[in-house]
Amino acid sequence: MKNTFGNNLCVTLFGESHGNSIGAVLDGIAPGIPVDTQNIAKMLEMRKGLNAISTPRREPDKFEIVSGVFEGKTTGTPLCIIIKNEDTRSADYSLTKDLARPSHADYTANQKYHGFEDYRGGGHFSARITAPLVALGAIIKPALEQKGIFVGSHILKAAHLSDREFGDIKTDLDLLKTKEFAVLDDETGEKMIEQIKTAKSKGDSIGGVLETAVIGCPAGVGEPWFDSVESMLSHAIFSIPAVKGVEFGLGFKFGDSKGSIANDCFINQNGKIVTKTNNSGGINGGITNGMPIVFKTAFRPTPTIAKPQNTINIKTGENTIIEAKGRHDPFVVHRAKVVVDSVTSLVMADLLTTRYGTDWLGEK
Amino acid sequence: MKNTFGNNLCVTLFGESHGNSIGAVLDGIAPGIPVDTQNIAKMLEMRKGLNAISTPRREPDKFEIVSGVFEGKTTGTPLCIIIKNEDTRSADYSLTKDLARPSHADYTANQKYHGFEDYRGGGHFSARITAPLVALGAIIKPALEQKGIFVGSHILKAAHLSDREFGDIKTDLDLLKTKEFAVLDDETGEKMIEQIKTAKSKGDSIGGVLETAVIGCPAGVGEPWFDSVESMLSHAIFSIPAVKGVEFGLGFKFGDSKGSIANDCFINQNGKIVTKTNNSGGINGGITNGMPIVFKTAFRPTPTIAKPQNTINIKTGENTIIEAKGRHDPFVVHRAKVVVDSVTSLVMADLLTTRYGTDWLGEK
Amino acid sequence: MKNTFGNNLCVTLFGESHGNSIGAVLDGIAPGIPVDTQNIAKMLEMRKGLNAISTPRREPDKFEIVSGVFEGKTTGTPLCIIIKNEDTRSADYSLTKDLARPSHADYTANQKYHGFEDYRGGGHFSARITAPLVALGAIIKPALEQKGIFVGSHILKAAHLSDREFGDIKTDLDLLKTKEFAVLDDETGEKMIEQIKTAKSKGDSIGGVLETAVIGCPAGVGEPWFDSVESMLSHAIFSIPAVKGVEFGLGFKFGDSKGSIANDCFINQNGKIVTKTNNSGGINGGITNGMPIVFKTAFRPTPTIAKPQNTINIKTGENTIIEAKGRHDPFVVHRAKVVVDSVTSLVMADLLTTRYGTDWLGEK
Amino acid sequence: MKNTFGNNLCVTLFGESHGNSIGAVLDGIAPGIPVDTQNIAKMLEMRKGLNAISTPRREPDKFEIVSGVFEGKTTGTPLCIIIKNEDTRSADYSLTKDLARPSHADYTANQKYHGFEDYRGGGHFSARITAPLVALGAIIKPALEQKGIFVGSHILKAAHLSDREFGDIKTDLDLLKTKEFAVLDDETGEKMIEQIKTAKSKGDSIGGVLETAVIGCPAGVGEPWFDSVESMLSHAIFSIPAVKGVEFGLGFKFGDSKGSIANDCFINQNGKIVTKTNNSGGINGGITNGMPIVFKTAFRPTPTIAKPQNTINIKTGENTIIEAKGRHDPFVVHRAKVVVDSVTSLVMADLLTTRYGTDWLGEK
Repeated sequence: MKNTFGNNLCVTLFGESHGNSIGAVLDGIAPGIPVDTQNIAKMLEMRKGLNAISTPRREPDKFEIVSGVFEGKTTGTPLCIIIKNEDTRSADYSLTKDLARPSHADYTANQKYHGFEDYRGGGHFSARITAPLVALGAIIKPALEQKGIFVGSHILKAAHLSDREFGDIKTDLDLLKTKEFAVLDDETGEKMIEQIKTAKSKGDSIGGVLETAVIGCPAGVGEPWFDSVESMLSHAIFSIPAVKGVEFGLGFKFGDSKGSIANDCFINQNGKIVTKTNNSGGINGGITNGMPIVFKTAFRPTPTIAKPQNTINIKTGENTIIEAKGRHDPFVVHRAKVVVDSVTSLVMADLLTTRYGTDWLGEK
Repeated sequence: MKNTFGNNLCVTLFGESHGNSIGAVLDGIAPGIPVDTQNIAKMLEMRKGLNAISTPRREPDKFEIVSGVFEGKTTGTPLCIIIKNEDTRSADYSLTKDLARPSHADYTANQKYHGFEDYRGGGHFSARITAPLVALGAIIKPALEQKGIFVGSHILKAAHLSDREFGDIKTDLDLLKTKEFAVLDDETGEKMIEQIKTAKSKGDSIGGVLETAVIGCPAGVGEPWFDSVESMLSHAIFSIPAVKGVEFGLGFKFGDSKGSIANDCFINQNGKIVTKTNNSGGINGGITNGMPIVFKTAFRPTPTIAKPQNTINIKTGENTIIEAKGRHDPFVVHRAKVVVDSVTSLVMADLLTTRYGTDWLGEK
Repeated sequence: MKNTFGNNLCVTLFGESHGNSIGAVLDGIAPGIPVDTQNIAKMLEMRKGLNAISTPRREPDKFEIVSGVFEGKTTGTPLCIIIKNEDTRSADYSLTKDLARPSHADYTANQKYHGFEDYRGGGHFSARITAPLVALGAIIKPALEQKGIFVGSHILKAAHLSDREFGDIKTDLDLLKTKEFAVLDDETGEKMIEQIKTAKSKGDSIGGVLETAVIGCPAGVGEPWFDSVESMLSHAIFSIPAVKGVEFGLGFKFGDSKGSIANDCFINQNGKIVTKTNNSGGINGGITNGMPIVFKTAFRPTPTIAKPQNTINIKTGENTIIEAKGRHDPFVVHRAKVVVDSVTSLVMADLLTTRYGTDWLGEK
Repeated sequence: MKNTFGNNLCVTLFGESHGNSIGAVLDGIAPGIPVDTQNIAKMLEMRKGLNAISTPRREPDKFEIVSGVFEGKTTGTPLCIIIKNEDTRSADYSLTKDLARPSHADYTANQKYHGFEDYRGGGHFSARITAPLVALGAIIKPALEQKGIFVGSHILKAAHLSDREFGDIKTDLDLLKTKEFAVLDDETGEKMIEQIKTAKSKGDSIGGVLETAVIGCPAGVGEPWFDSVESMLSHAIFSIPAVKGVEFGLGFKFGDSKGSIANDCFINQNGKIVTKTNNSGGINGGITNGMPIVFKTAFRPTPTIAKPQNTINIKTGENTIIEAKGRHDPFVVHRAKVVVDSVTSLVMADLLTTRYGTDWLGEK
C-alpha cells in the first residue's frame, strides 16, 4: 500500500523534503502507552548524526503530536505527528532542477509522476521522511522494552572497516546506548569517522552495513509464508532510502556453508529451549524461535557527491554534467541506525499485535 | 496478509506437504491471457531438479486448474490451481514427529500452533508449497514476455564455487533456457554438481546464491516507500523457504564502495535514457529506471541432513538426538531457481497492474 | 481485495457456476477448532432450500477439505475447501450465451472482462459461489458458539408478507434451529411458501428481507471509522448476490424518528450495563456495546424469470428478446439465510481475532 | 484497516474533536490534478450547514495542505491536509466526562480503549473528523467531473417529510448546486427546516435520508464479490457517524417486488446500451452497468439532545441522569450531504484507479 505499512499496527508517511511539513500517522496502537516527548526529541537528535560528518542542513525537527495522545498516553486512535521543514534552501535546487542526480530518484520520480513531482531535495523520496518514522519508533521502542523486548543496531561496516559482530547482545545493546557513533569497538569507530571525513573532504561518500538485533521476542511470532518475520522486516527496511541489501543470520554466508555446520541445534538449557548457535538469526520457517533476531542491512554510499558527474537533462533529454551544490551527507549509516531501530520496532510491534491483539502492547 | 500477497494481482497459498493437496489462488489477473498447461508442466518439472542431486520424493505434480480459465484463456476471475500430493511417506515422520528438526519450522510451528499443526514433512512450511507458485509463474511469465518483459535466474554460487555474473542479460536469459542446471558457465556447473553429490554422499547439504534479472520493464514502475520494487520483491522472495538474504545491484558490496564509484550516471544513448553502469540494479528510490532489475538471493543449506544432530523433544522438552530418515535435497538452489523466477514474475506483474490497470497484462 | 475479505481472518473465493469446482480458502483461523464435516454437510443442505420452491438444479455439494485440518481440528494454516460442480447443464446456456439476462451480471461481466468471462450460469458471479462461504461458516459458527456468541437469521419479509421481528433473541434463535423454512411465525411462513409457489407457477420471482442477530458478543469489538462493525458487515453482506440493502437497528426508520425516542439509554441491570431499548442494533460509533447486533438485509427478486424480457445481444448490440431456459429459484431469501449467517459469523470472528489475537477463537 | 480505506486511492483519517487538529492523508492520487483551495473552503463551508439549524460550534475550518501538492497540482505522493480545532469548549464536557451519552460512542470507546480515549466531544468518534474527508472530496470530485463523472446528493427525507426522488439526474445535480439546503423541491425543504427548528426548540433532534447519484461512470467498473461497488460504497458510507442504513436502487422495496416488475431490461438506444428502468441503481453483480449509480443512506437523529436521559456513570457503573450542555445539531443530514458526496467520490475514484491505473484520474 504505497505509503502505508503494517497489518494491525500501521504507519502512513507523508511529506516532501522542502514542503511545508513531513509526518506520519500510526494507526492500531494499543491504548495507554506513555508518550515521552523527550525521548522523541532525543531519537530525532540521534538521527541528525555527528555534526562533523553530517549534512550542514540542521533541521530543528520541532514536532507536534496532533492526535492520538491524551494526558500523556496513547488513546488507541490514530497518532499523527507533524515535523516542520525549516532549514530548506530550495534555491540550491532550482538551478539543477531539470538535471537527474545519478542514483537518486529524480529521473524515476519524473517517469512516474510526469513532471508533477516536487523535485526539490528529492521531494517525497528524500531520506528526510524517515524523521517521522524515528519519532514513532521513539514511542514504540520503549513500549516494547516494557515487555522485555529490546531492539538495537550498530555500524558493522563503513567502507573497508568492520566493527565486531554482536556478542552478548543484551550487554552490547546497553553499551550502544552511550555511544554518539554506534560502534561496539571505539577504536574502529574513530577510524571510520576519519575515513568519512576524508571522503567528505574529497566531495565523496561511503557506504556501510548495519547489524541489528531484537532480543526478548517470544517464540511463535510471525506468520507463515508472506508475513514471515523476514518478509515483513525486509519489506519495511528496504523502503528506507539507500538500503540495497538485507540478510538474516548468516545471510549470504550460508551460500558458502553446509547444513552440518550451519544448522542450529536445539537444546534444553535449564528448562528453556534455545539453540546452540544462532545462524538462523532467530527465525525458522519465518517464525521466531525465541533466540535473538539478527539481521544486517547494506547501505549504498550517499548518491549526492560534490564531484562532477555525467547525467541528462530530464526535460530536454540532453547529455550534460551535474555538480551538486546542495548540502549532503558523506555517510548515512550512523544516521540510519536510529531509523532501522525504529522501523524494526514498528514491524515487531505489528507482528506482536497481530498475534496477541490490539491491547497487548499497552497492557501493564 | 499471512498467505496472501499482492496489491492488485494477489496470490493465496494453501496446503501441507503430506496433506491431500496443495494449491494457490491467483486473483486480479487480466482477462484473455493464454494458459499453456504444457508450460505449467514444464516449469513444475524444472522445479523437481536434477534426479541425481534431488530428493527421491518424486511427486508427479499432476495439477488441475479448477477455476478462472475458460476456453484456454484467463477469465479475469480467480484462478485456482490444485496439485495432488501422491508420493507421501508420512510414516517416515511418525517416529520423529515430536523431535524438532534443527533449523526447520517444527519447533516454531509448534510454538505458534500449539501442537495442532500438521507436523508431517514440515506441513504448511514445506518447500513443496512452492509448486503452486511455480504453476502460477508459468502463466504470468509468458504473459510478461508478450509485453517484452523477461525474467530469469542462474545459480551464481554453490558452496565455494561461483558462476560468472550476468553479462548481456538478454543473451544470457536465452542461454539459460536450454540448461537443465541453470548456470552460465557449464564447467563451473559440473563442478557444482560434483560438490553437491559429495555432500549428498556424506549426508550433508550445501547452500548457494541465485542471481535474478528482469529486463524490459519500463521506467516509473513501483511505488514510493513501502511498495518500492525492492520492498515488494524482497517481501515475496523472503517468503520462499531457505532464503536468508536478498540484495539489489551491488548490494552488500555497496558497503565497501564510494559514491564516486558506485553511482550510475545517466546518459542519452541514441534517444534512450540509460545508465552507464547498473550498480543500482535498475531501481532508484524504489522505482524502476528502465535498466535491468538485478538482485541476488541467498539460500541456506537444506536443514535436513542425514547426520545425527542434537535437538529436543517438543512434547517433553528433553534433550535428544535426531537422525533424519525422510527423503531430502542436498541442494535446493537449482530447484528454487524456477520458484524465484515465478515469484519475481508475479510481483512485477502486480506492480505493473497497479500502475496500468487491471486489463494491462492481457491486452493485445 | 476483489475475492479476499477480512483483516486477520480472511476468506478467498474462487470458482464458476459451471466450472470444474468452486471453493474457498480461509486464512488466519485459530488452531485447534474442531471441524465437524456433518455440520458442513447440514449447512450446505440448508442452503439448497426447500425442494418445492427452489431450483431443480440439485448439486450434491460433495466437498473436500484439502488443507488446514489435521486429525479433525484446524491447524491454524489455510483451510481450503473444494466443492465439485456436478449437476451443470451448460447446454441450457449455450443458446442464450450472447444475450444479457436483465439485472444479471452478464452484461457487466462482459464489459469488465471483454468476452473472456465464463458466461455459463453467471460464471463467477453465480450465487453458487456462496456454497463455500457456507461451508466455512459451518466451521466458524460453532466455534463462536463455544465462546458464547450466537448468530442467526429469519425471513422477515417475502413479498408483502412479514414475519414478526426478533423478540427474545436467544429463544428465537433456538426456535429457528428446528425450522426448514426460517420464520418465527409458522402461519406466516406457510403463506409465504404459497406466494412463492404462485410466483413460480407464473414464471416469476419474489424478493424479501432477512433479519439477523448476533448475541453474546462482548462490548468494545470493532474499529473506529473504516473498520466499524457496520462497515465490515455491510461490505461482506453486499457481496452476496441479490443483496441491495443493509440496515442496522431501526435503519431507515431512523429517518422518521426523533432523538428523544430513538436513543438507547444505558442502565446498570444488576451489575451489567445494558441499554433499555436497542434501536442502535448493538453498535454505537461502529463499536459493539454488548447488546444484540441486529440488522436487516434486503434481497431483490431473482432476476432469472421464465417470462420473455427485452434485452440486447452482447456481441451484436442488437435488441432482442430473452426467455430463460435454465433452472431457477423463484425465491432466494430462505436459501440466503444460511449464507448471511455464515458471512456474519466470519466477519464477527475476524473482528474478534483482530481484537484478541490469532489464538483467541481456538482457545479452550 | 481501521482508519485507512481504499485499495489504490487510500484515505487515512486522524484527529479528535477537541484535540489540536484533525486531518487526513490521501495516498495513491494521480499526479497533475488541480487543487482548488477555494473549492475546499466552499465544501467545508457547506459541511457547516445552515446557521439556523446547526450547532453553534462554528469552526473556521482553516486548513493547510502540508504535502502532496506542488505548484497548485497534485504531485502523486501523499496529500496530507490538516484542519485546526479552534472553537473547542472542552469545559462543556468535563462535568459529564464520566457519563455515557446515550447512543454515542462514549461507552463503547471506553470499553475498547479502557479509559485512555479522549472523551471530549466524542474524541476520535466525533463527526468533526468528516471535515478532512470533505476537503479531500473537494479535490477528487472536480477531478471526476473532468472525466465526465458527476456525484451529488439531496435530502430525500427529514422526519416525515419527503423530497421527490431523482428524475433527470444531470439536471437535478445542476439544480442542487445552487441550494443552501439540498432539496429538489424547495417547498418541502422549507417545511423540513421548520420541523428541524421545532425539534431544536424542544431540545430534540430528527433523522433523515439522503439520496445520492453518480452519473457518467463507465460500465465494467468494480470487482467481483468483496470489492463490488456496493460493498465498497457501503463500507465507506457506514463509517460516517449516524449512518444506519444503505440501499441501492429499489433497496428494501425489492422485498415487496417481483422479478417481472423489478428487472431492468437492456435496450440499445441509438448505439448506446442502457436499461429501460434503473431499479438496480446502476449496478449488476457488483459491477457498474453504465446507468446512474443511485443509493440511499439513512441517518439516525443526532443522539445528543437537550432533554434529560437515563444513563450510567462509566467509572462507577451507577445509574444516573445526563443533561447535555454541549453545542449540538438538531439535524445532521443536510451537513452530511457533502460528506456523502465526498466519500462517494473517493470510493468511485479508487475503483476507477484500480481499473485504469495510477495515472488515470490525472490524465488530460
